[in-house]
Amino acid sequence: MSSENHKTGLQLRSLLKKSGELEVSLANVPTPEPKDDEIVVRIEATPINPSDLGLLFGPADMAAAKFSGTQESPVVTAQMPAAALKGMAARLDESMPVGNEGAGVVVQAGASEAAQALMGKTVSMIGGAMYAQYRVVRAKDVMALPEGTTAADGASWFVNPLTSLGMTETMRREGHKALVHTAAASNLGQMLNKICLKDGIGLVNIVRSQEQAAILHKIGAKHVVDSSAASFTDDLTNALVETGATIAFDAIGGGKLAGQILTGMEIAINKTAKEYSRYGSNVHKQVYIYGSLDTRAVELNRAFGMAWGVGGWLLFPFLQKIGRADAEKLRQRVVAELKTTFASHYTKVVSLQEALQPSNIAIYNKRSTGEKFLINPNKGA
Amino acid sequence: MSSENHKTGLQLRSLLKKSGELEVSLANVPTPEPKDDEIVVRIEATPINPSDLGLLFGPADMAAAKFSGTQESPVVTAQMPAAALKGMAARLDESMPVGNEGAGVVVQAGASEAAQALMGKTVSMIGGAMYAQYRVVRAKDVMALPEGTTAADGASWFVNPLTSLGMTETMRREGHKALVHTAAASNLGQMLNKICLKDGIGLVNIVRSQEQAAILHKIGAKHVVDSSAASFTDDLTNALVETGATIAFDAIGGGKLAGQILTGMEIAINKTAKEYSRYGSNVHKQVYIYGSLDTRAVELNRAFGMAWGVGGWLLFPFLQKIGRADAEKLRQRVVAELKTTFASHYTKVVSLQEALQPSNIAIYNKRSTGEKFLINPNKGA
Repeated sequence: MSSENHKTGLQLRSLLKKSGELEVSLANVPTPEPKDDEIVVRIEATPINPSDLGLLFGPADMAAAKFSGTQESPVVTAQMPAAALKGMAARLDESMPVGNEGAGVVVQAGASEAAQALMGKTVSMIGGAMYAQYRVVRAKDVMALPEGTTAADGASWFVNPLTSLGMTETMRREGHKALVHTAAASNLGQMLNKICLKDGIGLVNIVRSQEQAAILHKIGAKHVVDSSAASFTDDLTNALVETGATIAFDAIGGGKLAGQILTGMEIAINKTAKEYSRYGSNVHKQVYIYGSLDTRAVELNRAFGMAWGVGGWLLFPFLQKIGRADAEKLRQRVVAELKTTFASHYTKVVSLQEALQPSNIAIYNKRSTGEKFLINPNKGA
Repeated sequence: MSSENHKTGLQLRSLLKKSGELEVSLANVPTPEPKDDEIVVRIEATPINPSDLGLLFGPADMAAAKFSGTQESPVVTAQMPAAALKGMAARLDESMPVGNEGAGVVVQAGASEAAQALMGKTVSMIGGAMYAQYRVVRAKDVMALPEGTTAADGASWFVNPLTSLGMTETMRREGHKALVHTAAASNLGQMLNKICLKDGIGLVNIVRSQEQAAILHKIGAKHVVDSSAASFTDDLTNALVETGATIAFDAIGGGKLAGQILTGMEIAINKTAKEYSRYGSNVHKQVYIYGSLDTRAVELNRAFGMAWGVGGWLLFPFLQKIGRADAEKLRQRVVAELKTTFASHYTKVVSLQEALQPSNIAIYNKRSTGEKFLINPNKGA
């Protein structure tokens, strides 16, 4: 590869027009000249996470999407529901790059020692605009991957690993000893099981089918309860008694599940209660909602006393809250266990163009458990 | 009064039988001999708070209550709904004394110096079993009232004053600068207005009628919004913009109000936002539910980003959390401002027997804004 190859590159863009039309396409953009402390990374692996889909397509009607442009430069258009447009005023008519995390090879480096030291290395990074062939980034914001680790190994180094570590870390910091996770057969959920098995943490996995339960049993999960089973309430309560879990991380969001979990926790706690309190137990029970697989309203029956909380949870505010030093410890653990605890599995590797093909969008935009796509923006380039 | 008068006294009891029958009556109980560090208080004033009604009648069907016994020793029986019985297993067939807080005169004291020093003094106290003619309590657990303060002045020294101070204190400790209060025309709500006016804190009062709004305007409340008005959403948003309130204390509990408040806060915050975030603002918005005037489920539409929390809030866990020294500072403030900021107004003073009369129960068990009863267990005794 000549050193001139990376002077321009393709970048995936999502543009929401005032009319409500969403247009996703590839733009050919010049790569900025790196400053002294910056590097240019040729991106070779960047995953499609649920958190990327929000910016990429959001709640647009993809079933009725139109596909135009050329094979080399495809264009996808779809209509955003009017109700959803309201909350998106700030992104209207702004062509936005997409892609939270990725990994690749450093092909150019600024003059600083830190930048120069990374030349030719494979690095992982976060910060958006990863669905692109090249990305300029500060040397101190990337993490060099250990020898023998490929860009594909390191592409999902941030979102899922740190989210699942963030959950057990939040559990500890807020004084709980075990946790509950919903939509638990997801990539993230499987990773959380590996962490909990390794660290000896009790984990109650809530899934929505026997197939999902089987996935988790296969990787050694100890407590798996199926919300579609008639015995769900009893199964959940038993698992809560066995683990003592009083905090949950919920990817579903809408409906009655968060309230059911809190109710189960309260029943489990009261099985050992000695004294009547009309306010319920004084053990704090917490559900953090971090996803929105069900977009309906959250419905809380409040049959769980007064010591409870439900709230939103996001990775970045969590990392900010714990501070740089503690966040760095979590990152170091991820890199050390990238091929074991934090290994990601992809069902398909696609180019930027392939990522905009109808047949692929139909699969990865389902957000279904077990399907995970990786983009290699330099595939075939 | 002879020193023997207080050797026995009447005590109000609430007994929930396994059958679901609730029986409220007066028992004649011996007054225990005080230990060295204890005193005997002749209770002269004890309020009926919403938090007392939970133990007294709970959700029993008082409209169909039966009244028997004699004028001197009335008995009230009512049926507890089967659904409510489930959560009350620990109180079944236990005759429970009632009454959180009260005040009265010390009529006997143990040998210790601290106990002896209180002899003849008017003191205020908490700890349950206040709906009684006499109460034995440790000297260090009461607070002597200043000269010129009657038992009636000091009876409501704890629950409402410390709950309202607990709200502004929680607001400060959790990094908010202004707050929202619902069912805001209540005794507690009026007290909160006095605190906020005195301390220069922005307060958004949410009421359910124009009559309630008028009560608050009369005492100088600056921001009053009526949830029954067609312009409620706009009025609320405007008040949130003007005050910058990002925390709310909600006595209603059920329905959509908590979600509406969070949505209003998010809209208010975004009026000054500069950058698009698909997760919404990163300003944390909190609603604490401390009452249950509406017993339906809480319904959260989640149109307010990811930086939010909803949870239960109770006075005692709050006081425990801040620790004895800080709690003591709040108590000192209450006693110092007992006749101004923390003055309570009662619509009626009743004896223990009168408290069990149908016409009185019908009024104080409505839990309606503006009605507050005080029991004087030694009235006419």
